[in-house]
Amino acid sequence: MVRPVELKHRNLPGLRGKIADFVEHRHFIAVISALIVINALTLGLETSTGLMANYGAAFHLFDKLVVTIFAVEIALKLYCYRLPFFKVGWNVFDFVIIVISLLPHAGPFAILRALRILRILRLFTLVPQMRNVIGALFHAIPGMASVIGILFIIVYVFSVLGTQFFGAHESDALQAYFGDVGNSMYTMFQLMTLDDWSDVANTTMESYPWAWAYFIPFIILTSFAVLNLFIGIIVDALNIVKEQDLKAEEEDLRTEIRALSGKIDALQDDIRKARSD
Amino acid sequence: MVRPVELKHRNLPGLRGKIADFVEHRHFIAVISALIVINALTLGLETSTGLMANYGAAFHLFDKLVVTIFAVEIALKLYCYRLPFFKVGWNVFDFVIIVISLLPHAGPFAILRALRILRILRLFTLVPQMRNVIGALFHAIPGMASVIGILFIIVYVFSVLGTQFFGAHESDALQAYFGDVGNSMYTMFQLMTLDDWSDVANTTMESYPWAWAYFIPFIILTSFAVLNLFIGIIVDALNIVKEQDLKAEEEDLRTEIRALSGKIDALQDDIRKARSD
Amino acid sequence: MVRPVELKHRNLPGLRGKIADFVEHRHFIAVISALIVINALTLGLETSTGLMANYGAAFHLFDKLVVTIFAVEIALKLYCYRLPFFKVGWNVFDFVIIVISLLPHAGPFAILRALRILRILRLFTLVPQMRNVIGALFHAIPGMASVIGILFIIVYVFSVLGTQFFGAHESDALQAYFGDVGNSMYTMFQLMTLDDWSDVANTTMESYPWAWAYFIPFIILTSFAVLNLFIGIIVDALNIVKEQDLKAEEEDLRTEIRALSGKIDALQDDIRKARSD
Amino acid sequence: MVRPVELKHRNLPGLRGKIADFVEHRHFIAVISALIVINALTLGLETSTGLMANYGAAFHLFDKLVVTIFAVEIALKLYCYRLPFFKVGWNVFDFVIIVISLLPHAGPFAILRALRILRILRLFTLVPQMRNVIGALFHAIPGMASVIGILFIIVYVFSVLGTQFFGAHESDALQAYFGDVGNSMYTMFQLMTLDDWSDVANTTMESYPWAWAYFIPFIILTSFAVLNLFIGIIVDALNIVKEQDLKAEEEDLRTEIRALSGKIDALQDDIRKARSD
Repeated sequence: MVRPVELKHRNLPGLRGKIADFVEHRHFIAVISALIVINALTLGLETSTGLMANYGAAFHLFDKLVVTIFAVEIALKLYCYRLPFFKVGWNVFDFVIIVISLLPHAGPFAILRALRILRILRLFTLVPQMRNVIGALFHAIPGMASVIGILFIIVYVFSVLGTQFFGAHESDALQAYFGDVGNSMYTMFQLMTLDDWSDVANTTMESYPWAWAYFIPFIILTSFAVLNLFIGIIVDALNIVKEQDLKAEEEDLRTEIRALSGKIDALQDDIRKARSD
Repeated sequence: MVRPVELKHRNLPGLRGKIADFVEHRHFIAVISALIVINALTLGLETSTGLMANYGAAFHLFDKLVVTIFAVEIALKLYCYRLPFFKVGWNVFDFVIIVISLLPHAGPFAILRALRILRILRLFTLVPQMRNVIGALFHAIPGMASVIGILFIIVYVFSVLGTQFFGAHESDALQAYFGDVGNSMYTMFQLMTLDDWSDVANTTMESYPWAWAYFIPFIILTSFAVLNLFIGIIVDALNIVKEQDLKAEEEDLRTEIRALSGKIDALQDDIRKARSD
Repeated sequence: MVRPVELKHRNLPGLRGKIADFVEHRHFIAVISALIVINALTLGLETSTGLMANYGAAFHLFDKLVVTIFAVEIALKLYCYRLPFFKVGWNVFDFVIIVISLLPHAGPFAILRALRILRILRLFTLVPQMRNVIGALFHAIPGMASVIGILFIIVYVFSVLGTQFFGAHESDALQAYFGDVGNSMYTMFQLMTLDDWSDVANTTMESYPWAWAYFIPFIILTSFAVLNLFIGIIVDALNIVKEQDLKAEEEDLRTEIRALSGKIDALQDDIRKARSD
Repeated sequence: MVRPVELKHRNLPGLRGKIADFVEHRHFIAVISALIVINALTLGLETSTGLMANYGAAFHLFDKLVVTIFAVEIALKLYCYRLPFFKVGWNVFDFVIIVISLLPHAGPFAILRALRILRILRLFTLVPQMRNVIGALFHAIPGMASVIGILFIIVYVFSVLGTQFFGAHESDALQAYFGDVGNSMYTMFQLMTLDDWSDVANTTMESYPWAWAYFIPFIILTSFAVLNLFIGIIVDALNIVKEQDLKAEEEDLRTEIRALSGKIDALQDDIRKARSD
């Protein structure tokens, strides 16, 4: 359904065209995809301290090799496509992931070492079906914005109310649940997922017996809003498909009706001729 | 889909018309919306005792300013539209929220101080997309009334049964779950959301081993009823959209068929003329 | 959508017809409905030992009055409609509920005293919208039979496997979860609702570390089957509505096309006449 | 919707044809189905040590009888259909289940004794409605592959990140949740089902207060992906049905239009004849 804007490399002149042919070739993409999957496995294995003690050097070497290949790949693409390369969202995504991989893995950027696993997300760029699913999700976001906005406002209102109602209580549990607006928003998010909401509600009701009048409306309101979000997405998804079907059907019938119309025109001609005879 | 009845201010005479132009102007609405969002943030920050110790006076001043602006806004609207102002549900909603804000925040109305955060809900009135979503939800309620009624009856029947079956047990846990009809209804609501239902059921089954025959049918019945509610909403949502599509398609084909019909009429005329020649 | 077979009382002769007119009159139905709702409230209040100490006699009197009215109502209907009365499912439902109310409330039938609250379910018979929703649910059951069958087989297979794998362990927790096939089926039902499944799985994995290979496939399989059940119902609900819409639209277009056809026939006649002239 | 490839036995010559007639006869299938259900019950009862002490021999005898009948049945089918027998997936399924039943139930294959209950799954092969539901599920898998792939990648990425972030902590709870990638994937699967996710998150946040920034995005991302999977299946299911309906409707209208076209052709002929007269 979502057709991402692709860079047409066939128009590129000389060497740039040849390199573009190479980096867009399905064999090359297959090799890169395989490297991504293998690298994902090795990054998983690297979390095992036992394996790292014995094969750490090999893992690091392989990791450096993969980063180098990815860096060369993106450098080649940049050389071919120049700045328009960044017009395609997926390219920007790839670029950011590779830049993260190239940053020094020590000191203030130590966390970035962990983020190397995000490289596996490049599969989304390379596998067209996955790219389409992700694209469709992004496409659906604007349509859901108002429902998400309403949901956020409900959560925020209840968080502020919860903090004012229950946040002044000295018990540790209530402080953890409603001590400040941040805690309250986390608690409200938990309640929205319906996970252990009765625990939170029962703990609060020990100190504030009327608190059910706060929790039950929240549960009902957010379940309803989430449900609505859900339905909006289903209806959207169905509409796109349905409209295409309906149009195709209508087109078929219209063609038949036009053929009829043509016949009647011919008939009219004949009659006119008959009259003029 | 839902087009709320708007007051057409363009028909208002003289000063009233000018004021209406002002309060309905999109720049004025943007300023009010911004005030609402900023006020929501400051009301959130006010829950922090640390911040209140230092900046409490500033927060209170800003709050009073916002209330004054909102009160002036609604007073202007009332002056323009007079009593018909209250014919629009959203205006009543705004009016109630502002009246709550203007009530004294002490003594018996202390709770109203907390309800000031409800002002953020005015965004629903001001952002058309959100107003539509809320409107659609209200629109869907009558269609769901019978399913909600059935659900409520199931919950009530099981609450009375639960109180009679398990409410006489002296254990604290069972008293909390089924001590009276109110507790039972809360417990049944919890079970309906499937949250920790096995906890409730296992506790009850320790004293009444046959209680699974009470809980499992309830879980199945309510899940089924909730599911039905859900489906009803989806089907409704899809139907509204679909009907519009189908009608548009049918209209297109009908136009084509009528064009045909016109041509045949012309043909008939020609033939009649040919015969009369 | 579901039109329950109604007994047409208008054909009944003499006194039977008059009585039928009376018991089917909407005022009479409104009075009965009000009695049901009030009775539901008093039955709820009867669970309060405090209220019963003071007003027990009044509650019992009212209850006897309601039962008598319901018994007279059903007796009148039986007199009017004779045996065909039992051809309508809803009548059988009402009859059983009233018979339960008339049974002695002591000794072996003590539990029946609690079941008096089921009388409120008569509202489903009296409120047409609710009757339709319930009717539609019953209508949907045959279509779901095979998915429910598959779901039951999956639960049974995993229950027997669970009992064989974990039921021999001496720990109390595992005995409670998997001690016999009955316990296992209850546990599997709990897992199917996703409620605290990780608790059950973690407890089991303490003794049998490989047990995740038993739990995760079960969770995935049943979630998938439940999902399918769900979708089946949605698709069914949409189809019924859609088919009606499509048929209406097709009928409209067909009428137009037939009008065209009639015109062409008239044309043909004219031409034939022209030729024969 | 899914029409499994059936072996047409009617073309089989002589004795093979007669045996095929016998094993495919609906009475024979009914007997086999009954045996499967009874066997499922006895395998359930066999888990009761009390019953086994008294009736163990009878159960074993019955079990041997059932296995023998199933083995003879499959042997007859193999004799009739020869190797093409294995072209039908359901036959392979039956064959594997019966081979498992025939393996020695001791020593290294002790686990297989437990797997005898899988025989009940042969009902899926024998009941056409169930076979269709299972077939439709298998049919839906390729369409869902990319969403499942995305879901798996998200789980894997968060598992590796979780292991790197929290796996080094010495606390037992965090070791159990995030000690290695396997544990992390199990934890992430639990979070995806929303079961007790707040427990895991709260435990982690005691040591790593910023961990909410890891858990909440995961919950939102996977809920969204699961939702998408769900919607994909609904849309697919609806499309198959809808397309059939639309095509039928279009076909009806097209027939009407063609009848019109025929009439106009006849008209044309008449006019031509009239002119040539």
